[in-house]
Amino acid sequence: MSIKKIAVLRGDYIGPEIMKAGLAVLTAATKESDFSYQIIDYPFGGAAIDQTGTPLPETTIQGCQAADAILLSAIGGPKWDQAPKRPEAGLLEIRNKLGLFANIRPTKINPILAQRSPIKPEVIAGTDFVIVRELTSGIYFGQPRSQTADAALDTSTYTAEEIERIIRVGFQMSQHRKQHVTIVDKANVLATSKLWRQVAEKVSRDYPTVTLDYCYVDAAAMKIISQPTFFDVIITANLFGDILSDEASVLTGSLGTIPSMSSGSTGPSLYEPIHGSAPDIAGKGVADPISMIQSIEMMLRESFQENQLADQIAQAVQKTIAAKVLPPDLGGTASTQVVTEQIIKNLKG
Amino acid sequence: MSIKKIAVLRGDYIGPEIMKAGLAVLTAATKESDFSYQIIDYPFGGAAIDQTGTPLPETTIQGCQAADAILLSAIGGPKWDQAPKRPEAGLLEIRNKLGLFANIRPTKINPILAQRSPIKPEVIAGTDFVIVRELTSGIYFGQPRSQTADAALDTSTYTAEEIERIIRVGFQMSQHRKQHVTIVDKANVLATSKLWRQVAEKVSRDYPTVTLDYCYVDAAAMKIISQPTFFDVIITANLFGDILSDEASVLTGSLGTIPSMSSGSTGPSLYEPIHGSAPDIAGKGVADPISMIQSIEMMLRESFQENQLADQIAQAVQKTIAAKVLPPDLGGTASTQVVTEQIIKNLKG
Ligand SMILES: CC(C)[C@H](C(=O)O)[C@@H](O)C(=O)O
Ligand SMILES: CC(C)[C@H](C(=O)O)[C@@H](O)C(=O)O
Repeated sequence: MSIKKIAVLRGDYIGPEIMKAGLAVLTAATKESDFSYQIIDYPFGGAAIDQTGTPLPETTIQGCQAADAILLSAIGGPKWDQAPKRPEAGLLEIRNKLGLFANIRPTKINPILAQRSPIKPEVIAGTDFVIVRELTSGIYFGQPRSQTADAALDTSTYTAEEIERIIRVGFQMSQHRKQHVTIVDKANVLATSKLWRQVAEKVSRDYPTVTLDYCYVDAAAMKIISQPTFFDVIITANLFGDILSDEASVLTGSLGTIPSMSSGSTGPSLYEPIHGSAPDIAGKGVADPISMIQSIEMMLRESFQENQLADQIAQAVQKTIAAKVLPPDLGGTASTQVVTEQIIKNLKG
Repeated sequence: MSIKKIAVLRGDYIGPEIMKAGLAVLTAATKESDFSYQIIDYPFGGAAIDQTGTPLPETTIQGCQAADAILLSAIGGPKWDQAPKRPEAGLLEIRNKLGLFANIRPTKINPILAQRSPIKPEVIAGTDFVIVRELTSGIYFGQPRSQTADAALDTSTYTAEEIERIIRVGFQMSQHRKQHVTIVDKANVLATSKLWRQVAEKVSRDYPTVTLDYCYVDAAAMKIISQPTFFDVIITANLFGDILSDEASVLTGSLGTIPSMSSGSTGPSLYEPIHGSAPDIAGKGVADPISMIQSIEMMLRESFQENQLADQIAQAVQKTIAAKVLPPDLGGTASTQVVTEQIIKNLKG
């Protein structure tokens, strides 16, 4: 079996702490398996600015392109607020350079952690949806954009091709789920949204068993908190996906546990926690490693079809949560290390 | 005392039902007062499409411009989905033609209704903030915009002047509140947001006692549900305000009661419920009239400085809610008429 190359971008502040935890779990989980891999570190984000002056050095792009999968930890922070090119710019650039147009963010309620949600238990019970966010176009990348002291301009563009490929990703996912696709847009105002609807109509003809509906983004922002069980697969543009997936993450009561995946048509996918680099708790050894560990689980499943290994990690995490070995963000007192060791212990049983 | 002209746009589906209720309360509340007014009806929205072929006829624009205040009820609905110019287009046009650049939406928890919120009581207790949404620029109106079968484009523009006037509205409001302004933007991505921050810095120098902070729109979408008491005055661009104000309305558990105001630099302000025209319950006599009644209260206060009349209405509404004379959307069984009559009865003592 070939050795898989995993590019590792360790991130800033708590980034390296949770990456270390995640890789320890990966080592333990794969020890007696056939899955062999190689970890290759590349500088990225704030750390790369410190080392090379830029958040995404050329060597990092090349290394990522040559990898079979990419693990990214949280980046950015106040240290680089005044940098000419901030860590976040590196994030946009890596998505663009690697063509990672499909960002997948699951929102699933873990009954044990759900009590930490600001939303009432009877509202979120059974919530299980996925947001499929377009990640390399829209107002994030549209040209022209300009800014003077008197005026500024941003452009949002979508081609039918860009829309079609992301919508297909969503319809495809819905086949293994509840077969319900909701396109979220602002078609009563935006030209790009009108095109999204046309393309969605066309694509939906190839998926006759899937129910398709449309929801304006303002109504979706309401429905995600008032009736989250309505949704199965939400497909939406870059900016709307940014806002709604963060809103949705609050439902779970456990932001510190949520992974995400970004994929292209070809090339490696990238896996990362959805939370930030938490400068306030960095270095204290109390960061929640579960989002990173679950990002690794997602990688094993989606990039390497190692479902058994992924299931083992998922079960070990679940067992650890059930045993209330929890870091502070989930209401416990366990350190990053204690949580990680417990998960590794639970791998075996 | 001069006779105030109030332009009335009765809306579609439940629109006319709740407008009738609102005007009955206005009649009763003002009967023994010095406040004299004249109601002038104009066609608008779906009703205007049926009558004249267009959602915003020229006579309506002129009538509104000549009025001292405008009352608008919910518009739109499936009947006009295929119209060449839909009711919503009329809404964008009236905002634009009357220069109504400042949309004010209060989010305040009524403890009696809060139990209907999907959010836990301990999270929303004490929530009291206002969203100041820019309403006549940004991606709603930016040019160029275009759409073919292959590609589409929207443009978001802001001038420093447009930003400054809306930010001043928000700072001004904060003076009579908790003196805390939060600018919500996406300055890590958008050129327009960067200009918003520059202008906010400048304007804030004129309000040295006001605390100013910034929040990315994705983080704001989280914070509105996880820590809503953080906010006092949120100032934001058109599209972000659309999404966040709808999200925020869910907190109250009583969408059917929330009013809003849209104002320009000169000319009349417009008052309207934030909810839609609810085709499913139209004609059944069960629509909640409270949003319209509170829109009228807001009009008396903001356009006519009739604080005493406004307070009377506010108290009568509160008493009616406390007595649990509630329409179905608030968990009761009272009809529109019963709720309205109870509010009128409560005006007297
Ligand atoms: C950091 C920022 C540019 C980024 C985005 O808006 O895409 C982040 O919020 C995310 O969702 O990954
Ligand atoms: C109907 C629609 C165009 C409108 C908007 O997006 O402004 C509505 O959602 C609102 O908030 O008043």
